[in-house]
Amino acid sequence: MNQEAQLIERIAKAVPSLRGARGGAEARRGLRLGIGDDAALLAKGGRGDWVLSCDAFVDGIHFRAKSYPPDSVGYKALARATSDLAAMGAEARFFLLTLGLPTGLRGAWLDRFLRGMRRAARELGMRLAGGDTTRSDKVSISITVIGEIGRELAVRRSGARSGDLIYVSGRLGRAALGLALMAARGPAAGLLAPLLKPHLYPQIRIELGNCLARRCVASAMMDISDGLSTDLARLCRASGVGARLAAERIPCVRIPPAATRALRGKRLNPLRMALHGGEDYELLFTVPRRSLKRLRSVREFRNCTAIGEIVRGGGTTLIDEKGRATPLEPLGWDPFS
Amino acid sequence: MNQEAQLIERIAKAVPSLRGARGGAEARRGLRLGIGDDAALLAKGGRGDWVLSCDAFVDGIHFRAKSYPPDSVGYKALARATSDLAAMGAEARFFLLTLGLPTGLRGAWLDRFLRGMRRAARELGMRLAGGDTTRSDKVSISITVIGEIGRELAVRRSGARSGDLIYVSGRLGRAALGLALMAARGPAAGLLAPLLKPHLYPQIRIELGNCLARRCVASAMMDISDGLSTDLARLCRASGVGARLAAERIPCVRIPPAATRALRGKRLNPLRMALHGGEDYELLFTVPRRSLKRLRSVREFRNCTAIGEIVRGGGTTLIDEKGRATPLEPLGWDPFS
Repeated sequence: MNQEAQLIERIAKAVPSLRGARGGAEARRGLRLGIGDDAALLAKGGRGDWVLSCDAFVDGIHFRAKSYPPDSVGYKALARATSDLAAMGAEARFFLLTLGLPTGLRGAWLDRFLRGMRRAARELGMRLAGGDTTRSDKVSISITVIGEIGRELAVRRSGARSGDLIYVSGRLGRAALGLALMAARGPAAGLLAPLLKPHLYPQIRIELGNCLARRCVASAMMDISDGLSTDLARLCRASGVGARLAAERIPCVRIPPAATRALRGKRLNPLRMALHGGEDYELLFTVPRRSLKRLRSVREFRNCTAIGEIVRGGGTTLIDEKGRATPLEPLGWDPFS
Repeated sequence: MNQEAQLIERIAKAVPSLRGARGGAEARRGLRLGIGDDAALLAKGGRGDWVLSCDAFVDGIHFRAKSYPPDSVGYKALARATSDLAAMGAEARFFLLTLGLPTGLRGAWLDRFLRGMRRAARELGMRLAGGDTTRSDKVSISITVIGEIGRELAVRRSGARSGDLIYVSGRLGRAALGLALMAARGPAAGLLAPLLKPHLYPQIRIELGNCLARRCVASAMMDISDGLSTDLARLCRASGVGARLAAERIPCVRIPPAATRALRGKRLNPLRMALHGGEDYELLFTVPRRSLKRLRSVREFRNCTAIGEIVRGGGTTLIDEKGRATPLEPLGWDPFS
């Protein structure tokens, strides 16, 4: 359990809290899922549930207001929050924006920030329904996203079972490469610009998640926000299972020579970036073997890769190309370490 | 329109937004009320709606982590967010907590913070259903509160009509006195301690609000978070009306000699504190004359005072004890001024 998980545990113990799936009185009062998954579920009436999650995005921790394109800050703030809806299989609907702004950033910076947020909102089908604003020393954003999903269709972290195959969407480590390039020299034009995009303007898998949920393909799902090693450990803990990953199956970032030059020869390890890099916002999901045929009918299936298998017990094991097994430590992003 | 209102307007124009009461497609998709009131409304199914609002509470802007009792920060963070539910007449249910914490405050400070939040949660009937945590330079809290209310019972800002009487609950300016005492000397024991309470541990009128809503007494309602002058102007603008207030009817804070001594003779004006002080979290509501009898049956009625009347046109006029009328400027709290 990393330091953030320990902190959440401490908060949930100290304050009256609602964890996990709710039955009885809580379900009758409309809360169907509390703390411990990507999002909470509230009754919507009819055959649906509301899906709610919130996400903090803070200058100096998650981005740098001084050096990042302002529109990327607005875009990413909404995109990464919405990724929690994709992780449940929900459709994106509304958001509430809490925005803390320094005095100096209320002119052109804010206009560009809002332009980025508008683009994300349009792409994701989100609309602003409320919020709060305040002055603050640094840009500080908290977004509450609200999605919608059919009753009983939300895909939780806790449904993975021994024998299920483990899939990821996309290619992992691309955001880590973008971050390394930003740290090395700030926004870049030309050859490097496309390599920054996964870090600055992450694409959210809202359609894939929704399709997997509607067709009941995935037994468990979450988004990869903190790194595959850390997030897979969370999924396994929630499901009470372990995992075996084949290193050579993991779709790793490709590092072109231009990037190596920009990093002045600094050696990057694509597998490490894919395992621990974080912020890829790809989906991590498990599929029972009996559902594989249905998975192949999902439109974005070609963009998904089987990387391993759920096993009994706990912990994650990485199998290298020579068949050697080593424990995979959760070394992804932890805001408190 | 103060600077915060201008900023909200700018955001709502720049980003795809849902303002005011929703009909047609939006209502069918479940959003009943968007930007512009104390909270948004989402369909719950059956005969109810969910009520959602979020509130930021930031070190250096709203409190000082170094000098405020940590439990007061936890208490007030949740209480002031919940006040937006009271303002709609809702019952309090769940909350999502976004917590940004500096490294140095994760020990005893956090324990005391959480103790205060637990007390507020118990008093208000709130339970934690999710959230997000991050490291940050200063303590930064954003809380999304979720309440529940019967369909069509939520009391909006926009329902005040000419001839309605204007009421406030409690006594205004008490939080401003507490703030002045905190600024002068920090937490105090003995005689002064009770005078700090309205600032540190505000009592939220969730029962009063809910009762006014259930009995359909109030035509418009909001909570007084930024000061009567500013919040009444907002209510009038939302309703397209004006207001006349009788200065001598306004229930003002009483300033005991001990407070004057602690402030080293600094002269405080109780009426100014009541008009512009902010953070009282009392309810401001309007009552059509035909509903006055029903109002008197509300349990907390004795705690409410008629302070004026809604009139045609716009703007707020203050009538002093000699019958002289002066325009009442909105001089309450504005985080950006």
